[in-house]
Amino acid sequence: MINWNNMDTLSAYAALKAVQPIDLRASMSGENGAQRVKSYSIPMGSSMDFNYGARPVDDAILEKLAAFAEEAQLAEKFAALYNGAVINTGEKRLVLHHMCRGQLGDDVVADGVNKRAFYVEQQRKFTELANKVHAGEITNADGEKFTTVVQIGIGGSDLGPRAIYLALENWAKANNTLKMKAEFISNVDPDDAAGVLSKIDVAHTLFILVSKSGTTLETLTNESFVKDALVKAGLNPSKHMLAVTSETSPLAKSSDYLAAFFMDDYIGGRYSSTSAVGGAVLSLAFGPEVFEKFLAGAAEADALAKNPDLRKNAAMLDALIGVYERNVLGYPTTAVLPYSQALSRFPAHLQQLDMESNGKSVNRFGESVNYVTGPVIFGEPGTNGQHSFYQLLHQGTDIIPLQFVGFKNSQMGSDVVIQGSTSQQKLCANVAAQIMAFACGKDDDNRNKYFAGGRPSSIIIGEKLTPEAVGALLAHFENKVMFQGFAWNLNSFDQEGVQLGKVLAKKVLAHDTDGALKVYSDLLNI
Amino acid sequence: MINWNNMDTLSAYAALKAVQPIDLRASMSGENGAQRVKSYSIPMGSSMDFNYGARPVDDAILEKLAAFAEEAQLAEKFAALYNGAVINTGEKRLVLHHMCRGQLGDDVVADGVNKRAFYVEQQRKFTELANKVHAGEITNADGEKFTTVVQIGIGGSDLGPRAIYLALENWAKANNTLKMKAEFISNVDPDDAAGVLSKIDVAHTLFILVSKSGTTLETLTNESFVKDALVKAGLNPSKHMLAVTSETSPLAKSSDYLAAFFMDDYIGGRYSSTSAVGGAVLSLAFGPEVFEKFLAGAAEADALAKNPDLRKNAAMLDALIGVYERNVLGYPTTAVLPYSQALSRFPAHLQQLDMESNGKSVNRFGESVNYVTGPVIFGEPGTNGQHSFYQLLHQGTDIIPLQFVGFKNSQMGSDVVIQGSTSQQKLCANVAAQIMAFACGKDDDNRNKYFAGGRPSSIIIGEKLTPEAVGALLAHFENKVMFQGFAWNLNSFDQEGVQLGKVLAKKVLAHDTDGALKVYSDLLNI
Repeated sequence: MINWNNMDTLSAYAALKAVQPIDLRASMSGENGAQRVKSYSIPMGSSMDFNYGARPVDDAILEKLAAFAEEAQLAEKFAALYNGAVINTGEKRLVLHHMCRGQLGDDVVADGVNKRAFYVEQQRKFTELANKVHAGEITNADGEKFTTVVQIGIGGSDLGPRAIYLALENWAKANNTLKMKAEFISNVDPDDAAGVLSKIDVAHTLFILVSKSGTTLETLTNESFVKDALVKAGLNPSKHMLAVTSETSPLAKSSDYLAAFFMDDYIGGRYSSTSAVGGAVLSLAFGPEVFEKFLAGAAEADALAKNPDLRKNAAMLDALIGVYERNVLGYPTTAVLPYSQALSRFPAHLQQLDMESNGKSVNRFGESVNYVTGPVIFGEPGTNGQHSFYQLLHQGTDIIPLQFVGFKNSQMGSDVVIQGSTSQQKLCANVAAQIMAFACGKDDDNRNKYFAGGRPSSIIIGEKLTPEAVGALLAHFENKVMFQGFAWNLNSFDQEGVQLGKVLAKKVLAHDTDGALKVYSDLLNI
Repeated sequence: MINWNNMDTLSAYAALKAVQPIDLRASMSGENGAQRVKSYSIPMGSSMDFNYGARPVDDAILEKLAAFAEEAQLAEKFAALYNGAVINTGEKRLVLHHMCRGQLGDDVVADGVNKRAFYVEQQRKFTELANKVHAGEITNADGEKFTTVVQIGIGGSDLGPRAIYLALENWAKANNTLKMKAEFISNVDPDDAAGVLSKIDVAHTLFILVSKSGTTLETLTNESFVKDALVKAGLNPSKHMLAVTSETSPLAKSSDYLAAFFMDDYIGGRYSSTSAVGGAVLSLAFGPEVFEKFLAGAAEADALAKNPDLRKNAAMLDALIGVYERNVLGYPTTAVLPYSQALSRFPAHLQQLDMESNGKSVNRFGESVNYVTGPVIFGEPGTNGQHSFYQLLHQGTDIIPLQFVGFKNSQMGSDVVIQGSTSQQKLCANVAAQIMAFACGKDDDNRNKYFAGGRPSSIIIGEKLTPEAVGALLAHFENKVMFQGFAWNLNSFDQEGVQLGKVLAKKVLAHDTDGALKVYSDLLNI
């Protein structure tokens, strides 16, 4: 029996609020600090560990968090989700993105089919297509191989797949498995499509139109933009376009596409990277074997997230420490700081994942909650950020919890030794140094050079950013966000907040406006 | 006589705190809302207007803000700055980035030279070089033209120039003035340099090493990385490299470079886009005439920022409304949301500009302040963000002020009509719709579909994103941040918060660590 209660009704939450916060600066100093960093670590799959030594918790707080996890039934709620309960209450839908990479529990049958079988079948279809494209069995009208793939999609059809492509582009180059270059068109701004088209050779390009509903305004507009360009180049668009959509969408059976791959209503856009939404473009770009490794990494992290023991479940612990930082310590923002240039767009994906899932003021029953929910998420790769916004993180008036990610080895293996160390060592030395600078600060009589410390962080440490590691990272954060949604008693799987803007934009385009909206429309020449 | 007082000592600040906040939802409704949007607008140069109709102010609050501007002597402080006072108190330096694009007041002589003449001379030098490169008078060893320019720099040597390059790349293509493709190497992560090198033709590439001190670890490391690649390709690095640095740096007179262009201690990294730091790469990429137009736009915005009348000074008003939102209304974060794909990296530049300038807890005399200072800044282009984090902006538990930017016309002029409107019209309709959705919300008995509204925003509306417009945008935000720094009585021009991490990273690389820092170093295999 699962109880869906608001967080502020739980006695474990009251107990958590009553506990004495730790002095992070003192805790992280000396031998005690060394012991914390050694022991506060959990394997999270694909040769990565989640180290929370510098988060603002101690054994006493961890006990309270474990009691919270139990009272909030986090493990049971995850089990309900992967066993096929209607977790997306607003839209009355199952939530099945985990099924794209494995099966964590019972068979789930919906719409008359076994859903695991359905996702596997879609994977088989785009695997087959990618293999044929790579083998030159599917070509352009002149019998020439396709060299480029362009994803046309927005939001979840763009941010996740783009972040993952960039994460693995150089890895694929180094491993001789970059089959096709990928580009992305997302914005309805016509300069986005025009800019991408100006730098590719359309005659050798496959376009993937990605829209679950088949009605996304930006995506359909950009499809027309691209079709125009293909026609102007004397090409037949239907020989250059694929679709990823739902089986019930107008795109599903259209002869406008070489092939269509399906997703369904049980996979939200921001959770769709492991479905055909990410699978088609990534399999074309890197080869299906690479996409499979990526799925395996995600599956490994998912399996670890089932563990009801909070101290052995990185995603659940990361989630609950985040809730503690947000609701008890009162920190409104979290920064994601990967020390890996390849992860340059990963924070933008997490920004959507987290803020669109948990940026809500009502619980899963549509009742207002009396506590703050999802924080603002932002971030850039290190060391770049050190030369940018870290000033505020170190010495600003607000405390911002930090999520670092670092790898022992580079992807391409090319490096130089300067001043006795490689670039990779310098990169890693910087992230280690930052964690300590944030946690412990530095005394100085000159207050301008004084660092208060007490600024918490965790770090995910991996061997190398491989396809498996990217998959595990992605799944870790998906599961973290899910557990936080459970803790706050939210529905993390709808997004009603995007609707009003769409309705008003239609009115503007129909010139059906008055008041301030009409003035803005006039000022913008619409 | 200028008084540098903390904000909480000003009677105008007490008066501001005592004023009744407006009900934005009511204010923006009906004819009253229409009137606000029509009248709350200020020209900001280069065919752009700053419209603050949807910010949380009314005439009464604007009066208090004007009194604040006067008591805080914002116009006088700006005058002191451009007339050559030592505004950067921590480092005891003048602050002269405005001089790169014009002269707003007195001649300023420092280090024995007229500084305006010095910056003009540097501009003349890189203009001459760029013209010679474009004309094929400066070539590679085989007498072939350079086709690509790569900027090697980090922080201010990277974010601003990169954001501006991306802002104008498609404009330059459409106007046949893209002379060279530009790339950027910034991160000490070896995969950054290796990734860029893997996609360019080094034999036809000029590299610009940008480091004021000539000692930036990341930049020197990446220089070695690039030199290695040049040597391996059988090329002479000194024929492929330029330097932008200070006259006193080790790089200034080195024979390792084709040419060196100078900046000085009076231009902070994050304020250096209009100096040789931005000038060399942008003049090579787009031609010196385009860079000149960009400077002209910045100069125009600077001139407008001199106006002591708050209601006619967009930068000053934007700054003070921001202070009101931060300190009186208590909003900790601000989002920057350009409806222009070309401005995709502009928020990252503003993030550095703002957070590194005003993310501080001590005033300009090194004394702790008793109020919050610079907010967290983040953002992505619209409409993309609408399909991502806008959910939280609309329905999350925190209110986040928004800074929109929109243009009536696209850069490339290529467009399609779908459902009766162009992509550009759809883009503009969306930003107009979002402003109203955020301000006025929507009632609904279903609380999941309810929008509280009351979420403030401003919008900068321009004709087109031209070089002049980019310059004016850049200067607007530089001046806004400067005025906020004055309001908070901060030194916005140093960055002591970046030092501690550097010191600790050196210790890690020297294996001179103990405690938790040693454990992290071991975990990261350093």
